[in-house]
Amino acid sequence: MAVSNEREFLMIPGPTPVPDRVLAALARHPLGHRSPDFSDILMEAIEGLKWIGDTNNEPLILASSGTGGMDGAIANTVNRGDKVVSLVCGVFGERFAKIAEAYGADVTRLKADFGQPVQPDALRELLAKDTKKEIKAVTITHNETSTGVINDLETIAKIISDHGALSLVDAVTSFGATDVPIDKWKLDIVVTGSQKALMLPPGLGFAFVSDKAWQAVDRSTNPRFYLDFKKYLKSQKERTTPFTPNVSFILALTESIKMMKEEGKDNIFKRHENLRETLRKGVRELGLKPFVEEAYASPTITSIWPPDSIDVPSIRKQLKERYRITVADGQEDLKGKIFRMGHMGYVFERDLGMALYALKQIVGQTSSTPIKTGASAN
Amino acid sequence: MAVSNEREFLMIPGPTPVPDRVLAALARHPLGHRSPDFSDILMEAIEGLKWIGDTNNEPLILASSGTGGMDGAIANTVNRGDKVVSLVCGVFGERFAKIAEAYGADVTRLKADFGQPVQPDALRELLAKDTKKEIKAVTITHNETSTGVINDLETIAKIISDHGALSLVDAVTSFGATDVPIDKWKLDIVVTGSQKALMLPPGLGFAFVSDKAWQAVDRSTNPRFYLDFKKYLKSQKERTTPFTPNVSFILALTESIKMMKEEGKDNIFKRHENLRETLRKGVRELGLKPFVEEAYASPTITSIWPPDSIDVPSIRKQLKERYRITVADGQEDLKGKIFRMGHMGYVFERDLGMALYALKQIVGQTSSTPIKTGASAN
Repeated sequence: MAVSNEREFLMIPGPTPVPDRVLAALARHPLGHRSPDFSDILMEAIEGLKWIGDTNNEPLILASSGTGGMDGAIANTVNRGDKVVSLVCGVFGERFAKIAEAYGADVTRLKADFGQPVQPDALRELLAKDTKKEIKAVTITHNETSTGVINDLETIAKIISDHGALSLVDAVTSFGATDVPIDKWKLDIVVTGSQKALMLPPGLGFAFVSDKAWQAVDRSTNPRFYLDFKKYLKSQKERTTPFTPNVSFILALTESIKMMKEEGKDNIFKRHENLRETLRKGVRELGLKPFVEEAYASPTITSIWPPDSIDVPSIRKQLKERYRITVADGQEDLKGKIFRMGHMGYVFERDLGMALYALKQIVGQTSSTPIKTGASAN
Repeated sequence: MAVSNEREFLMIPGPTPVPDRVLAALARHPLGHRSPDFSDILMEAIEGLKWIGDTNNEPLILASSGTGGMDGAIANTVNRGDKVVSLVCGVFGERFAKIAEAYGADVTRLKADFGQPVQPDALRELLAKDTKKEIKAVTITHNETSTGVINDLETIAKIISDHGALSLVDAVTSFGATDVPIDKWKLDIVVTGSQKALMLPPGLGFAFVSDKAWQAVDRSTNPRFYLDFKKYLKSQKERTTPFTPNVSFILALTESIKMMKEEGKDNIFKRHENLRETLRKGVRELGLKPFVEEAYASPTITSIWPPDSIDVPSIRKQLKERYRITVADGQEDLKGKIFRMGHMGYVFERDLGMALYALKQIVGQTSSTPIKTGASAN
């Protein structure tokens, strides 16, 4: 048994490990949000976010979860009755579809089996049929954390852009861990959150909005106030915020961005690729099988089939009780069928060495039985 | 000149001073939000909030600013075309009216001059004329920080309750500093935020919702997702949250609530009354005049006329540069006409002694001229 005050290691898809430098920034006394000092901090955070996303689009900084940003992406661009295509290959893709429906959109879901990515060709076909250009927006989850799949966003965004619809991208668990070049890929709204690769606790949502998306915002008729993107844009251009911002988190964000600049973006992206490879190789050596195939395996979260000899709740319980390592269960239909190990943000190879050691103590005792074959869970 | 690393003392109406114990809690590594440990913390925070508001109504905890809570109060209860009365005696009263209009409500403003409270009799008359009971809700700002006025919420709530409309209360800068007994006063939705008397940085919004308000929520047709109150209620009943919560702030909230329990509610309320008296007496002794009359002066923020001999920007600049004390300017029509000194939350008599000392060094050098008379600024 781990002692109860052993530091918890979070291997869930957010909150993720937060560096001490960032925690120390959170412990600083808050500044007044209308002070010149805070304006400087806000601008530094905005510039840093643009650097990460390689974009000139303004990143709106919301006091909200990532879902607040997704809500805003819909509320500000999609009107009641508008046709929307939602690309769904897991729980978060479905959430984006539900948000669009909450705002009265006419949503067509293009689904992939859980564990599979969205097929770009299927989207291309669907959009090709829309000769009247009635489809206003396509929602897409870049990295589907419920399964551990990363979608081919570059190809998908190109198809959407060629059609003319808006691309509304949930990049909550990819942004900052893998390349999301917003301008190059012409992504219209990119939403992310603080508690993933940006290495903060949960509390901030972000939305990068393109010029094309701002035109849709101008035409939007949904009632909104707190999530009204125009209010944020107007204020940020004046180096401030429309409502009291989470000054502590924005200060801490400048610290985490400093750390990202010290490491270098390419190094960060490469590190996450290496984490994926290290973990997949390691679990295979333990006789376990990753849930998702190599070609579209997420660089930030890895889903794993348990061996026949031990079930998911037991694996999670033992990792927690013996080693204070928290991993995630599957979600919805996959609950109890797979477990998920997050490796996003402030995670390094040696951390996976630790996790693989722990996993080996647990499954090594039991797994001489053949491993499950990787049939889709649906 | 203060040295640049002298600790800043915030006397603005939020963010307010944060105790070291709370800052230390913010520096703790975040827990997973789906863990039993976090469920316990969430429930402790909810119980504490109910204790402060003396209520059985569920306080919904949002990752948002206070405005997010106000938006939710409207979005979940007021439909397009509904008649709403907004009681406006300052900037925040007007904001509540604007939110209602953003959702298509037919808003009647009942205004008081800035510096004056809302007149309960005027509301009584207005509601008496509404014999068909078409008015669905009344918005009211308990403590109007833009002027430093506290409204007679008990009397106003009684009038609203007798009529049958919903009372939607912005208690952002009163809750936790003065008594807001939600059940006793039959307040339907009470909104507050973390960065005032609750002694946290900004980042959480709260909304207490009554049974009567939940009935209106059931009838509400506004599109909403992130601020959908029912999602929060459902999750909180299951000891969790619908979206990733700000786990760090909720943990820190349990720490600030512990501190409030140690001091005792009545002592906290009495301390704020004493702060008001100490500051008003002190500024008068410096030859300055409070902007607001005794009878409805806020216990959490005091607005002050500058002497003729020195203007508001100079007072604020000197307080900041010589003493690292930040006070607020007036807002909108009152900008440059008054300055505002916040004393909400983690503020004690000796802090006002410090602030009065500083103010004396600044205005004492210049103010042998007669003080302004207290005419209303409108």
